[in-house]
Amino acid sequence: MLIGKVIGNIVSNAKVSELKPMKLYILQVYDYSFSPTERYEVVVDGVGAGIGDYVLFCGGSAARLLKLTEAGVPIDMAIIARIDDFNKLKKD
Amino acid sequence: MLIGKVIGNIVSNAKVSELKPMKLYILQVYDYSFSPTERYEVVVDGVGAGIGDYVLFCGGSAARLLKLTEAGVPIDMAIIARIDDFNKLKKD
Amino acid sequence: MLIGKVIGNIVSNAKVSELKPMKLYILQVYDYSFSPTERYEVVVDGVGAGIGDYVLFCGGSAARLLKLTEAGVPIDMAIIARIDDFNKLKKD
Amino acid sequence: MLIGKVIGNIVSNAKVSELKPMKLYILQVYDYSFSPTERYEVVVDGVGAGIGDYVLFCGGSAARLLKLTEAGVPIDMAIIARIDDFNKLKKD
Amino acid sequence: MLIGKVIGNIVSNAKVSELKPMKLYILQVYDYSFSPTERYEVVVDGVGAGIGDYVLFCGGSAARLLKLTEAGVPIDMAIIARIDDFNKLKKD
Repeated sequence: MLIGKVIGNIVSNAKVSELKPMKLYILQVYDYSFSPTERYEVVVDGVGAGIGDYVLFCGGSAARLLKLTEAGVPIDMAIIARIDDFNKLKKD
Repeated sequence: MLIGKVIGNIVSNAKVSELKPMKLYILQVYDYSFSPTERYEVVVDGVGAGIGDYVLFCGGSAARLLKLTEAGVPIDMAIIARIDDFNKLKKD
Repeated sequence: MLIGKVIGNIVSNAKVSELKPMKLYILQVYDYSFSPTERYEVVVDGVGAGIGDYVLFCGGSAARLLKLTEAGVPIDMAIIARIDDFNKLKKD
Repeated sequence: MLIGKVIGNIVSNAKVSELKPMKLYILQVYDYSFSPTERYEVVVDGVGAGIGDYVLFCGGSAARLLKLTEAGVPIDMAIIARIDDFNKLKKD
Repeated sequence: MLIGKVIGNIVSNAKVSELKPMKLYILQVYDYSFSPTERYEVVVDGVGAGIGDYVLFCGGSAARLLKLTEAGVPIDMAIIARIDDFNKLKKD
């Protein structure tokens, strides 16, 4: 899994029907020092995250194991936790 | 999922039989500021997109959960939404 | 899916048994302007492609949905179409 | 699979329910000379690893084949072995 | 699939139980001209390869379709052929 920050959302009036009730968030991917990278992902949200939150997200078939997505929704990335804090080795 | 723009299509007279009824679009992948990147993908389309449209696409087994593809079609990328607009954090 | 050109094949006398009847082609991956990249893949072929052909290939579990591979052959990349031509937006 | 070093852990009070009993470790990915790279992954742990340990981790659906994760937990990376030593060719 | 050279192996006394009987090889990934790259993978072996051999390996769920791994072993990369020779287009 990787760390991301919720930076926006997608507006779409033409989606596959299974996606209709879901909000599509844009995440900026962060590195392990919580600094932003150039990478992004568009994701669905399993934990009630909001704009500006740091979150953990998973990809692939894992993203279809949430209550929200388990009925075969065609998505490949999902938020699985909101990150409150982290502990890190002082020296590597 | 990632953002792409439909920039063309592939012409093929020799496909695996399950692909026969499907149009194969070329997408240029876009970054989260809606600027083009060097990356592309060839995809099938679940929403009736056309050349020039901005779309959201998914990969892996997710791409085989569309009505069009669910019968075991050997593809790994599919358009799941046409993007009309997006909202983004003013400052990061 | 991505575009590749068949540039060679692998000779192997020690394969897992399910791979025995299959030819293993080396593809050079091409970009969306049909220019070669540094990336390659070794693939099996579902459409009767030959050396020098431009092809479309898929990866992951999609590659095991061909008639050739559907019996659980341990491969992760396969040719699904031979490319005859392509149409592209004049300006981006 | 790739080699990583456990360098920290994530604190989260809002997770999908299946993740509740699991510790989420931050791994720095290492190269094959056991030198650190810029890449990281957040993982669950199947072997009782601790901060500072070198470990082997797998991704994708493989990560859901541990006793800890096999009940459909939405994660895509997991530690499968602690690395004690390695043997390497003297010259390449 | 990609080409690799077996350059070492991992020693581990704490593995998930399904991995216990398996040797874990370190592969250096090679490009399509059989030159080494900076990338590596740790893999299990389905064909009896040894240190110094050039091999073909697959990733993802394909790696769990070998006799050795089909019982749900949590691994994501496996050797599927030893490479004896290859034929390549003279000019591209």
